Amino acid sequence: MTAATSPRFVTLEGLEGAGKSTAMAFVRDWFEARGETVLCTREPGGTPLAEELRAVLKAVREEPVAASTELLLMFAARAQHVERVIRPALAAGKVVVCDRFTDSTRAYQGAGRGLSMATIDQLAEVAHAGCDPGLTLWLDVPVALGLERAASREAADRFEQETLDFFERVRDGFEALSEREPARFRRVDATRALDEVRAQIETELEAAHGG
Amino acid sequence: MTAATSPRFVTLEGLEGAGKSTAMAFVRDWFEARGETVLCTREPGGTPLAEELRAVLKAVREEPVAASTELLLMFAARAQHVERVIRPALAAGKVVVCDRFTDSTRAYQGAGRGLSMATIDQLAEVAHAGCDPGLTLWLDVPVALGLERAASREAADRFEQETLDFFERVRDGFEALSEREPARFRRVDATRALDEVRAQIETELEAAHGG
Repeated sequence: MTAATSPRFVTLEGLEGAGKSTAMAFVRDWFEARGETVLCTREPGGTPLAEELRAVLKAVREEPVAASTELLLMFAARAQHVERVIRPALAAGKVVVCDRFTDSTRAYQGAGRGLSMATIDQLAEVAHAGCDPGLTLWLDVPVALGLERAASREAADRFEQETLDFFERVRDGFEALSEREPARFRRVDATRALDEVRAQIETELEAAHGG
Repeated sequence: MTAATSPRFVTLEGLEGAGKSTAMAFVRDWFEARGETVLCTREPGGTPLAEELRAVLKAVREEPVAASTELLLMFAARAQHVERVIRPALAAGKVVVCDRFTDSTRAYQGAGRGLSMATIDQLAEVAHAGCDPGLTLWLDVPVALGLERAASREAADRFEQETLDFFERVRDGFEALSEREPARFRRVDATRALDEVRAQIETELEAAHGG
């Protein structure tokens, strides 16, 4: 198993408001308690250029954004993040924990917007061949709860202005991933109390590291 | 032959300083003299969002831009331009004349940066399936002459700061395209006097329209 596909690259997935930031702190704590150096990062973003693209993607604008444009932009930001940040950190022996990665593209642009999963896999190959997470924690909440939590934070961006139907398709997309790749893509029930969420995350990390 | 691949979609290619803007005016004049409505546009760019991406691509920045990032960004801008501007204009019966298109990506990112032509063709399929130019005019000048003309215009952008070797590979890339697709990709000797350039362009347009 190469460093790039080991459980040392952990991603967090889920709807806005699912509790990914809190979960990220749990993951970081677990690795740091074992003496690891942990890089916490996020997508889209993670480098100055990729953060510029994040702003372009999230901006509410009059011009409709074509689904193919959004897809290619997501992967452009990801390619930059992987080349400049994620690959070098893994090569330096760090643990990388990333808030969203290609599974978000599968859920939002694939399941949500109806783009082809085969196309998404092709683009993943162009943007980050050989650099995939070894463990993904899917923080699952009902759509209504996630939206309620996200709405209390700040003005809705272009994605947050989507319909309830769209977010239901996204959640179904995450569920399909957990069925397709049960060993890597682990569902965490994020409606539970925080100490229970932390306990499950720690169990998943222990299992992924070979116990 | 569908509208999207007819000679009614004409692209101009070549190094900076090759005279693409002047050539575009000759093409526009030729179609307008025949009563056509002509949309003149450019890449990267052509919509407000795509022009934002043009600025991102051309900005001189400290952060090195990964070749795969540049490639995906070019196609993101192109997807938006095609969906919002080029396809609707062709569908409305207009002629579209575009300064640069996917052949520039083949020459700059493919031949220039060494990215795979197969990957570029895959991305072209994602960004603009079924929407390809029927005629491409390659304004060919020696690298040194193009650079000299371009340098007299404005501060060098990220691409214009490349080495002489890079631009030689780009020119070779255009030459390879003219060998691969001689019917569509027509070399115009742009070192000649303007009235001779105009005459050759008119000959090419007449040939492409079936005489």
